[in-house]
Amino acid sequence: MALALALGQRGQGRCWPNPAVGCVLVQSERIVGRGWTQPGGRPHAETVALAQAGQAAEGATAFVSLEPCAHHGKTPPCCDALVAARVGRVVIALRDPDPRVDGGGVARIRAAGIPVTEGVCAAEAEIAHFGFLSRQRRGRPALTLKLAGSFDGRIATASGESRWITGPAARRHVHALRARHDAVMVGGGTARADDPSLTVRDLGMAHQPVRVIVSRRLDLPEDGVMARGAGTAPLWLLHGPDAPADRIARWQNRGARCMVVQPGADRQIDPAACLAALGAAGINSVFCEGGGAFGASLLAAGVVDDLIGYTAGLILGAEGWPGLGAMGISALNQAPRFALVETRALGDDILHHWRRRALSAPT
Amino acid sequence: MALALALGQRGQGRCWPNPAVGCVLVQSERIVGRGWTQPGGRPHAETVALAQAGQAAEGATAFVSLEPCAHHGKTPPCCDALVAARVGRVVIALRDPDPRVDGGGVARIRAAGIPVTEGVCAAEAEIAHFGFLSRQRRGRPALTLKLAGSFDGRIATASGESRWITGPAARRHVHALRARHDAVMVGGGTARADDPSLTVRDLGMAHQPVRVIVSRRLDLPEDGVMARGAGTAPLWLLHGPDAPADRIARWQNRGARCMVVQPGADRQIDPAACLAALGAAGINSVFCEGGGAFGASLLAAGVVDDLIGYTAGLILGAEGWPGLGAMGISALNQAPRFALVETRALGDDILHHWRRRALSAPT
Repeated sequence: MALALALGQRGQGRCWPNPAVGCVLVQSERIVGRGWTQPGGRPHAETVALAQAGQAAEGATAFVSLEPCAHHGKTPPCCDALVAARVGRVVIALRDPDPRVDGGGVARIRAAGIPVTEGVCAAEAEIAHFGFLSRQRRGRPALTLKLAGSFDGRIATASGESRWITGPAARRHVHALRARHDAVMVGGGTARADDPSLTVRDLGMAHQPVRVIVSRRLDLPEDGVMARGAGTAPLWLLHGPDAPADRIARWQNRGARCMVVQPGADRQIDPAACLAALGAAGINSVFCEGGGAFGASLLAAGVVDDLIGYTAGLILGAEGWPGLGAMGISALNQAPRFALVETRALGDDILHHWRRRALSAPT
Repeated sequence: MALALALGQRGQGRCWPNPAVGCVLVQSERIVGRGWTQPGGRPHAETVALAQAGQAAEGATAFVSLEPCAHHGKTPPCCDALVAARVGRVVIALRDPDPRVDGGGVARIRAAGIPVTEGVCAAEAEIAHFGFLSRQRRGRPALTLKLAGSFDGRIATASGESRWITGPAARRHVHALRARHDAVMVGGGTARADDPSLTVRDLGMAHQPVRVIVSRRLDLPEDGVMARGAGTAPLWLLHGPDAPADRIARWQNRGARCMVVQPGADRQIDPAACLAALGAAGINSVFCEGGGAFGASLLAAGVVDDLIGYTAGLILGAEGWPGLGAMGISALNQAPRFALVETRALGDDILHHWRRRALSAPT
């Protein structure tokens, strides 16, 4: 199952809206088939593994990191494929909470007389499929927020100089995290200030995550890196109902997808509504790269699941720009707390990864 | 020699003005004597090890983490003691740069016909004796600056609430670092705001480091924890020439040692002058615990050797108090940079330790 989970990770960031599942077929202690959900979401992991195994699938044990699907989507149900291949046993980590599956896959395999074991490596699978489970259970993708700064928590000098505070190893790690998420998101302020490409570079990958910019009035640079890249990597713009129609039209002509998101009580775009819109569009996981005000609004809304910090050994002092904006916190017990997952050296910098304590509680 | 260095560390923080030396005597592959510089600085490590070995010292190899002293101070020279004990060979890590020694110990041992090997574990010894070497070479103690804060680099909420951002493991680690330094130092602002005890607690230790408060005009709380503790742990006050005489007298009556330090061009107390005064008083290492303005002035003056960060997984937002004050840095290449020594989990928080790149260059 550990291998199935590891294989499934290969599809992470590129098989949305489907989960990144892994499947291993074992016959007499030999691996006869390995598969993972392919780019775009199909074929599914089980189909790939069964095709590889051929006749050797008969009587084999199938390890699948998530319950095989039971519904006819763009492909026939995987549970039927496992039955047709006459596997001897099926082991799954977790049930698929998708209402079209949710135990249906397990039931159909058992109905065919094939034993099913559930719950193997369930905790690991909760983490591996966290984004997909989040969308199914909470109607929104998993959200990772990144902050890269100095020892004293500053992201630029008083004059705005920020290249580079962290080193090449940390920046490369950011590209790897972009690739593992379905979408990369920034607020309008960062889009205006930095005109970032938000693409994955120098990792030998052709696949690009969806780029998401959140800007209430779409007052974004229309002739920069971000705009020109709309042909090579998907660009989605989340805007308020009051965004000018001509701007929307111009961005649509450039190939961007524009989505209306309702504002919150403060007339600013509501972070939870943004994530709901992305979830409805099939996005399982989002990597947010700022800026400080947008990041603070996501934290204040309680929608951040993972925090990734990169800290460099340099000092910028109190005039430097803060990495996060105002949070309106007056007492310590109001401050959002995260649990440490990992810290380690990354080139000349450190990486620290934190996660909300209530990791997988269904709501 | 690794053992000698490790033994030497046991004296760290409590044998100033002397270096924390370790000594191991090995006879026919058996350890016959172990010693380290005792509290207060004597007996020296060699004396302790020789006493333990007795007759077995004859013909033994002596591993000493720093060149044995050659001058009559409060104890007779250790090089003579090694010769008198008729050891067979002496191995040292580093020469002692104290002008009263500086090769003299090695020369006297060799003159007695005993071979001396130098430079064994020299790099490790440069780190172990960094504070003592700093005082000898630069006329000032080594300085470690601590910063404990939130993920976004804040040390208190907007209202000043700071207990507790980091957890008990991090706070205990702070006490251990206090114990390993000769002195613990804070600026006057922190002394006024927090009235900290600055003592080592809950580690089963009776020894206390010197407490140092830097306050130009000595406008400090005179009836708090800090003042009452003057009897149990040494309290030194560094003040400017314009501190009122009656305040100086009152603190002296309480048992505090008051030292005048000349101001810099900005009329504030000059950080380099503070360290020079502590060095002249025999302090080899200082652990500074803030506050933000004082820490920034030390960093700006370029006198910080080690940075210790404790970071908690909680968010306070931009209204929170910054951990470091203004630095006057406008361009990134002016920002002081430190090299990573270590990062690791510490309870629910992370510890990160950074060091100036030019570790041991004599100036």
